[in-house]
Amino acid sequence: MKILNQADWVFTVNQLNQEDVALVGNQCMLGNGYMGYRGTLEEYRSEQLVACMLNGVYDQLPGKWREPVNAPNALFARVLHAGEVAQHRQDLNLRRGRLARWSTRSMPNGVVQIKSERFVSQSNVHLICMRYAVCPSQSGQLLIETGIDADVWDINGPHLDALQIYESDGVLCTTSRTQELGITVAVCETIDCDYEQSVEGSMRYITIDAEANKWYSFDKYVSIYTSCDSETPAEDAYRHCLQARQDGYELLGREHDQHWEVIWNDCDVEIDGDDAAQFALRYSLYHLQLAAPRHSSKVSIPARALSGQVYKGAVFWDTEMFMTPVFTLTNPAVARNLILYRYHSLPGALAKAKEYGYRGAFYAWEGQEEGKEACTHFNVTDVFTQRPMRTYFRDKQIHVSADIVYAIWQYVQITGDFTVLADGAAEVMVECTRFFYSYAYYKEDKDRYELVDVTGPDEYHERVANNAYTNRMVKFCVEASMQGLAKLKILDICAYERLQERLQFECELEAWARFAAKLYVPTPDATSEVIPQFDAYESLEDVSLDALKQRVLDPNEYWGGGNGLATTTKILKQADVLLMLHLFKQEYTREVLRKNWEYYEPRTEHGSSLSACAYAMVAAEIGKADWAYDYFMKTATVDLTGKSKLYVGTLYIGGTHPAANGGAWLSAVYGFAGLRVEGDRITCKSQLPSKWKSLRFHVQWQGARYELKVTHDDVEIKECKEPIIL
Amino acid sequence: MKILNQADWVFTVNQLNQEDVALVGNQCMLGNGYMGYRGTLEEYRSEQLVACMLNGVYDQLPGKWREPVNAPNALFARVLHAGEVAQHRQDLNLRRGRLARWSTRSMPNGVVQIKSERFVSQSNVHLICMRYAVCPSQSGQLLIETGIDADVWDINGPHLDALQIYESDGVLCTTSRTQELGITVAVCETIDCDYEQSVEGSMRYITIDAEANKWYSFDKYVSIYTSCDSETPAEDAYRHCLQARQDGYELLGREHDQHWEVIWNDCDVEIDGDDAAQFALRYSLYHLQLAAPRHSSKVSIPARALSGQVYKGAVFWDTEMFMTPVFTLTNPAVARNLILYRYHSLPGALAKAKEYGYRGAFYAWEGQEEGKEACTHFNVTDVFTQRPMRTYFRDKQIHVSADIVYAIWQYVQITGDFTVLADGAAEVMVECTRFFYSYAYYKEDKDRYELVDVTGPDEYHERVANNAYTNRMVKFCVEASMQGLAKLKILDICAYERLQERLQFECELEAWARFAAKLYVPTPDATSEVIPQFDAYESLEDVSLDALKQRVLDPNEYWGGGNGLATTTKILKQADVLLMLHLFKQEYTREVLRKNWEYYEPRTEHGSSLSACAYAMVAAEIGKADWAYDYFMKTATVDLTGKSKLYVGTLYIGGTHPAANGGAWLSAVYGFAGLRVEGDRITCKSQLPSKWKSLRFHVQWQGARYELKVTHDDVEIKECKEPIIL
Repeated sequence: MKILNQADWVFTVNQLNQEDVALVGNQCMLGNGYMGYRGTLEEYRSEQLVACMLNGVYDQLPGKWREPVNAPNALFARVLHAGEVAQHRQDLNLRRGRLARWSTRSMPNGVVQIKSERFVSQSNVHLICMRYAVCPSQSGQLLIETGIDADVWDINGPHLDALQIYESDGVLCTTSRTQELGITVAVCETIDCDYEQSVEGSMRYITIDAEANKWYSFDKYVSIYTSCDSETPAEDAYRHCLQARQDGYELLGREHDQHWEVIWNDCDVEIDGDDAAQFALRYSLYHLQLAAPRHSSKVSIPARALSGQVYKGAVFWDTEMFMTPVFTLTNPAVARNLILYRYHSLPGALAKAKEYGYRGAFYAWEGQEEGKEACTHFNVTDVFTQRPMRTYFRDKQIHVSADIVYAIWQYVQITGDFTVLADGAAEVMVECTRFFYSYAYYKEDKDRYELVDVTGPDEYHERVANNAYTNRMVKFCVEASMQGLAKLKILDICAYERLQERLQFECELEAWARFAAKLYVPTPDATSEVIPQFDAYESLEDVSLDALKQRVLDPNEYWGGGNGLATTTKILKQADVLLMLHLFKQEYTREVLRKNWEYYEPRTEHGSSLSACAYAMVAAEIGKADWAYDYFMKTATVDLTGKSKLYVGTLYIGGTHPAANGGAWLSAVYGFAGLRVEGDRITCKSQLPSKWKSLRFHVQWQGARYELKVTHDDVEIKECKEPIIL
Repeated sequence: MKILNQADWVFTVNQLNQEDVALVGNQCMLGNGYMGYRGTLEEYRSEQLVACMLNGVYDQLPGKWREPVNAPNALFARVLHAGEVAQHRQDLNLRRGRLARWSTRSMPNGVVQIKSERFVSQSNVHLICMRYAVCPSQSGQLLIETGIDADVWDINGPHLDALQIYESDGVLCTTSRTQELGITVAVCETIDCDYEQSVEGSMRYITIDAEANKWYSFDKYVSIYTSCDSETPAEDAYRHCLQARQDGYELLGREHDQHWEVIWNDCDVEIDGDDAAQFALRYSLYHLQLAAPRHSSKVSIPARALSGQVYKGAVFWDTEMFMTPVFTLTNPAVARNLILYRYHSLPGALAKAKEYGYRGAFYAWEGQEEGKEACTHFNVTDVFTQRPMRTYFRDKQIHVSADIVYAIWQYVQITGDFTVLADGAAEVMVECTRFFYSYAYYKEDKDRYELVDVTGPDEYHERVANNAYTNRMVKFCVEASMQGLAKLKILDICAYERLQERLQFECELEAWARFAAKLYVPTPDATSEVIPQFDAYESLEDVSLDALKQRVLDPNEYWGGGNGLATTTKILKQADVLLMLHLFKQEYTREVLRKNWEYYEPRTEHGSSLSACAYAMVAAEIGKADWAYDYFMKTATVDLTGKSKLYVGTLYIGGTHPAANGGAWLSAVYGFAGLRVEGDRITCKSQLPSKWKSLRFHVQWQGARYELKVTHDDVEIKECKEPIIL
């Protein structure tokens, strides 16, 4: 496998290796926020991890994890009697969101060339289009099987039953139902071709009397609706197929391309002087964008995007801290959807707080629809005993509620869109602040509030007290919420009064103000200037990462949890203090940033893809662009190299990393370009790596669009005159 | 092995089994609070776990556990050329604290009978006496080797070096020094005999021209001093030996017996109708009394008494909750020593609180001299990985400070001896209360104080919030401390003012009063009446004890700790809520006691010897004397049967169980006799097991001595006229 045409926006795979099937499936993803389609071949089946993942549609079988539903595969197509692949190449066009493949397969007499192209439409989220063509080396009859493969790959399935198949007007339809909630999933397909065909079950059999070395092709249109988005999913999918067939591949393709053009116009970052970095960054942005919900605020971006059922298709804090900030600056409408998704998730967050004896909104560690918590108390299996291990992701990682408020307030301040407060964000802020106040304790002896028994971003250290990141974020949450409410009162007194009527929060404001003022946030040590990650962090064993690795007995053993190797040491899983320092860098001296970077960097395992970008951003901030560069490349190439684990035992845990994808953009823009959006201005401070000549990108701020160009010596910021396309 | 002459106060072992060497060493202990001597044979060496453990003398080698020091063994004696044991019997006389043995060993021609008797003197704590006699079946020369065996058995040794040996005036002397602190240990012995002898090193060789079937005997006097108790230990031990030899075995034995007579006069409980229970209780009391410090308040009773180095010879909460209460009612002078021991331990407790960022006194989980904490953060080894396991005995079992104040206040109230407050107890109370106040958090949202992140008596559930036992005990601690200070102010204003001068506690009294008033103590559930052991206990898995045992993979695996089997279930190690209910039974209805007994009993593993007596006492209280009886027998026979584990791997963990010993007395007196000492009266309420006819015992209260007799129908309490012997 080799990357070609980096500058040309094309990611190419030019070999077909059995062991790379899962990897390439991730690398060549297509998607549109409504669904994601893995980059597998048309002839692949469930064993090759074909999946058309439906964002926000979940199902659970008794005793198994809840996870998103994969739809039956309507792109299935194969040439009957075709054998081994002789040549293969597939090209993912990042700019247009299209995947093409060319293969040569052996036939009983000669070979057949197969080529296809497909796109998951950005102009109509229910639509997938494919053009499929074959060319035999010998004359004779060619048989092609295509249709809807209902043998769906699932990790914890099967999720769909009650399969019904019918055909009408050349449209093949399947409907099936999820087992838990009875959600109907309707998948229809139709093809546009003149060849003889017959239908059996959900498959068509196309017979072509082919001449040698001549291409024969057909276009396929697939439409997917579910009862989550339609009252008549089967009818809608059916009619949509007919309409698509009438519109045709070319027209639908042009509309699709235009949408991607707008996307890139907003988010692209041009790097002059470093093709590898340029391509990696664009590749990252492509993967982030294909998962972005432009059509709805009822879904968000799961931690493994739309690449499969890994991590339960759940939404983590990743979204708010590493993805929403990208959209806030480049496509506020998507950011607004992501924020309101959390408003729609309030029921789950309120229920979770109540479950643990708190008030307000305790957002899910792994959020599913309506904020349902998918995380269990036993999220890891102990490799030494094969027993479930009690972990504290679910009940102690309280910072997620603060992260959400952070994203909201950053959105509001950058976009100037205060209407989101009345539309739900203010309610989220009230409930999150209420939660933290009910979670916090006041330590009379020290006249301060504390947050004890929490887990910060570094999950190797569970149940700590006064995690620096958590405490600072909660302080922000409370202050921002009070500011948000004050703003709402001024700008939309009716909405404010309705909120007060329902939530009766005004009587709590005084306590919240006291809480924010007296909440303890760990400060730099007087001598070392290092901020302790949590209480008594300094008393842990100071072992090196290499020495700790020497203690590993089982390559799959978990370093956290009850007896985890890292738990009693200073080794952290991922940026924790460093992430806090990035977010609140204006509050610390450059010296503090540097001392903490140098202290924590060798102690960080980077066991999470969220880690590298924080190190990149802070390194850039302290003038160490070359240190930053390595971490930037690490975050930007996560999905390009796909070097993270794909399997644990037989459990597939691969997938794409949209937080790292977002982190790449953040590292470029906040890190190397030194963007700051403060009060009434945006500024940049060039912190470019030595080999980069310039960085060029656009941001949206207060309803206007700006073009920014940063070179080593200069920063240019100019307002764009063309209107913003929403 | 079989118990003979139960009614005659004699515990007999009439076989010599190699596998019982460790067990019999515990069963036949002698001791006097200053030292304990294991019930091994004179010819045994370190492999047979011979030990003369010096209470309160500790040593630590680098990287190993700190533990008490065993002195060189001056009772060593053997007949040279003696072979296999043909017959053997040893009798421990509980009433007189003497151990006798009779054995027949083969000789090259015939056999030799050996008999000995020894006692560890109660009238002079530095003294051990032994009478040793042999009788050959054939005439001829008998060679006896006796002296000081300096090859000391240690778990984490060797602790003694710089061994010096000399002989003067028939006294063999050894001195040696501990490695850590250079404490001098002087052991001297002399014998009274007319046979020919020579000395080589620390051994004497006695030659007897013996006639067949005639007994030849000598008496041995051993004296032990250390630089902890003398400035001239070697001289003192030497002179003491000379004096003892002059006084002679008979006189010294009579003095010793008289002391035991007084001890039994105070503590004995006569059970009419149940010889097995009678013997088990006396056997328990014997083991408790042999460890009781009558000579000093600088030592206490370690958790394995004086039976060896197990549990580091450390003092646990066991003392205050299960031993001191026995002495408070039967021998206040010993109780006073035990209490003032904690005053002498303040330096360690203050240092420990400071180490963890608190004020006041955080008493050691495993206390050594001056309150030094012997417990590590890694007190257990994970059997699956052989790695040290982080445990929270040391830093989270805060209740020990409250337990100490409980014992103090109970002592003060029962004895009326308020002088102990001025002598140190008030200072302990101030510092313990100060500690808890600095540990506690105020939860504004619920207007209450809470104790979060603690471990209660049930160590299988570490780091819980609001453990019922802990919270109730802390409330008691704060209230009692304030009452104690008020009492001191009235009774000894000078002492009070000196204390205030030094500790400046008066400015804290208001906060303490608020703390005690608003400290949350878990209450019975409205429906079930069950008191939750801690927050969210009810959400744990409700698996049966049998089912949990089925999950065990390794017989030595620890059920607590990071991933312990019990940690995520409702199974508890030992009485927790039940102990609280015993201590505060007057605050709960009988129905609540019953419901909680019935709820927690099947969920308790009784993995601690402290557990059974609490169940016994509460069962008696709710009128279930027969339920109580089983738990009484369980606690009273712990050391008699010695059924608890003696080894984990190669690590010796056996030893006696003085808390269970004390628990047996408490179960009889507080349980079956229903003793209550409240305000201005003592009362009993007969709760006897059906087969018991009566219980008779003495208690001391407010300076007077009372004889109590309880039958099924009647309670008789009368003041004794004879003066109390102190």
